[in-house]
Amino acid sequence: MHRLRKPYLVFLGDVSLRSDAKTGFGLRDWCRDDVIGECALAAAQVSLDLPTMTPAQASAAGARSIVIGVAPTGGQLPHAWIPTLVEALKAGLDVVSGMHTRLERYPELVEAARTTGAQLINVRHSDSEWPIGTGSRRSGRRLLTVGTDCALGKKYTALAITRALTTHGVKATFRATGQTGILIAGHGIAIDAVVADFVAGAAEALSPSNDADHWDVVEGQGALFHPAYAGVTMGLLHGSQPDAIVLCHDPSRETIEDHPHIQLPALDEAIRRYIEAGRLTNPSIRCVGVAINSSSLSDADWARYQHRTQTDLQLPVCDPMRGGVEPIVEVLIA
Amino acid sequence: MHRLRKPYLVFLGDVSLRSDAKTGFGLRDWCRDDVIGECALAAAQVSLDLPTMTPAQASAAGARSIVIGVAPTGGQLPHAWIPTLVEALKAGLDVVSGMHTRLERYPELVEAARTTGAQLINVRHSDSEWPIGTGSRRSGRRLLTVGTDCALGKKYTALAITRALTTHGVKATFRATGQTGILIAGHGIAIDAVVADFVAGAAEALSPSNDADHWDVVEGQGALFHPAYAGVTMGLLHGSQPDAIVLCHDPSRETIEDHPHIQLPALDEAIRRYIEAGRLTNPSIRCVGVAINSSSLSDADWARYQHRTQTDLQLPVCDPMRGGVEPIVEVLIA
Repeated sequence: MHRLRKPYLVFLGDVSLRSDAKTGFGLRDWCRDDVIGECALAAAQVSLDLPTMTPAQASAAGARSIVIGVAPTGGQLPHAWIPTLVEALKAGLDVVSGMHTRLERYPELVEAARTTGAQLINVRHSDSEWPIGTGSRRSGRRLLTVGTDCALGKKYTALAITRALTTHGVKATFRATGQTGILIAGHGIAIDAVVADFVAGAAEALSPSNDADHWDVVEGQGALFHPAYAGVTMGLLHGSQPDAIVLCHDPSRETIEDHPHIQLPALDEAIRRYIEAGRLTNPSIRCVGVAINSSSLSDADWARYQHRTQTDLQLPVCDPMRGGVEPIVEVLIA
Repeated sequence: MHRLRKPYLVFLGDVSLRSDAKTGFGLRDWCRDDVIGECALAAAQVSLDLPTMTPAQASAAGARSIVIGVAPTGGQLPHAWIPTLVEALKAGLDVVSGMHTRLERYPELVEAARTTGAQLINVRHSDSEWPIGTGSRRSGRRLLTVGTDCALGKKYTALAITRALTTHGVKATFRATGQTGILIAGHGIAIDAVVADFVAGAAEALSPSNDADHWDVVEGQGALFHPAYAGVTMGLLHGSQPDAIVLCHDPSRETIEDHPHIQLPALDEAIRRYIEAGRLTNPSIRCVGVAINSSSLSDADWARYQHRTQTDLQLPVCDPMRGGVEPIVEVLIA
């Protein structure tokens, strides 16, 4: 399991598009207290509006890691970024990356890490060994966000529910399964990078036994209806043994992203399929609400859609970005 | 993808139990023409009844690989086995292992392989990189064996169907997904050793486009009803895009092996769930029969069970070991 050293300095390289700095904004928005500042090259055109500091200044102020908060074009570290990361390692900061390309590919980083004892951490990879899933029940309560497709708000919804539960005084922990979630939480497992045999076992390890009234809110991955990733989703569902699921959906999509020949399921059918599969390891699994990414809808259309969907499904229907997840959390607390 | 060099010399170490030499017997029974002989230490008490030869003799007779055909206790190569394997490498044979422990862990083997250019091959591992699954249809026909549980005849059934199709003059290829299957076929992918994200993509690569009238008969893994392995099963199902499935079952089991708290599904329910999941990538998927491991039943009980199950499901019900798979193959050919 990845365990990152906070607080962070966020590195933005020579970013020119806000959308490329999604990770940086995610860190600012979801773990502001863990981010000491930002650091970029002179050519950068995007800022998180956090204090600007060099790696040495950040280290002096208490930072323990520099996080690459921007996606480089082509997935490779540009040569111009290396000196700043070497500087950070020399200042004793770990370098943390969510890229596919491992930091160990860059000899300058390996050498600097060797000299200073700081670590190179690739959160998109999973280098631990995991046990085989047991299917045995464990104490504590669990919620898993699931989806009709990939990339439509499962992480955001899980974070919002965790925050809302905490606000209500309920013990809750966000359990990250993807690179951005791991950076935000400071811990977690890149579940889709685990060897297939061990996915359910890794999911069991991610949300271990806990107090009976504690909620683990697990970030979902993929979708049971995705031709490439349904296996990951299934293993995560079985290992998480959720008491509750929240279905995430984007009403502007009719087919699986990048797979125009595969229709999205209807919401009630999607819920039925997740419940059917999840019963294997938790017979009490139930759906407690639907989280909609409504960014494609006008206020009036969203109100109509929300009303109609709530009536159809007899479940709370929220947009975490537009009104929040309070109705879902009320079901959990009730 | 693993591609092994045949023919084989089968190594039996100092085996004392027939059940430990299951792999050796599997090779003898399913690819007899590819096995030149057997080789064992003086202490061995089990024989495959094949010609006995030293690695040098086997090499002279044309062998290209020595296959470890016995499971060592504890999963580690006993020290006493190493000299024979070194001798084989020196005779130019590849050493092929289905063990979890990689052959590279043994410095004597690494050194001998380095010197002679022969290879160390670990078929239980998957060191290739695979693409992400596409879900796109490809030419050729595919059958996947699926199960109500693990270890109840999916490999054996796939092999028997491949052999029967070939006997009927139908073009068919057995596609191996586990270590014993890979040894028998000489090629394949240990699908449960693939990183989770790439399981469906690896399954697509395993059974690529082919002649319209060619059948790939894919060895199933795990079960949709297994708390640890359902994700592997799902990815293999989606990537294989089977036109036909055969459900494998052992009527002596009521719960998942080693998981006494999880009931096996009814056969019709199991078929329904596989069809429901498989439709995602092949809307024409259908079940063409049921393969029963009836070893726990008397002849009379098996006849009754077979008759009743055929009537209930309206599908051919066979035991590949007891009467063969002809009725299933007739459905495929029809």
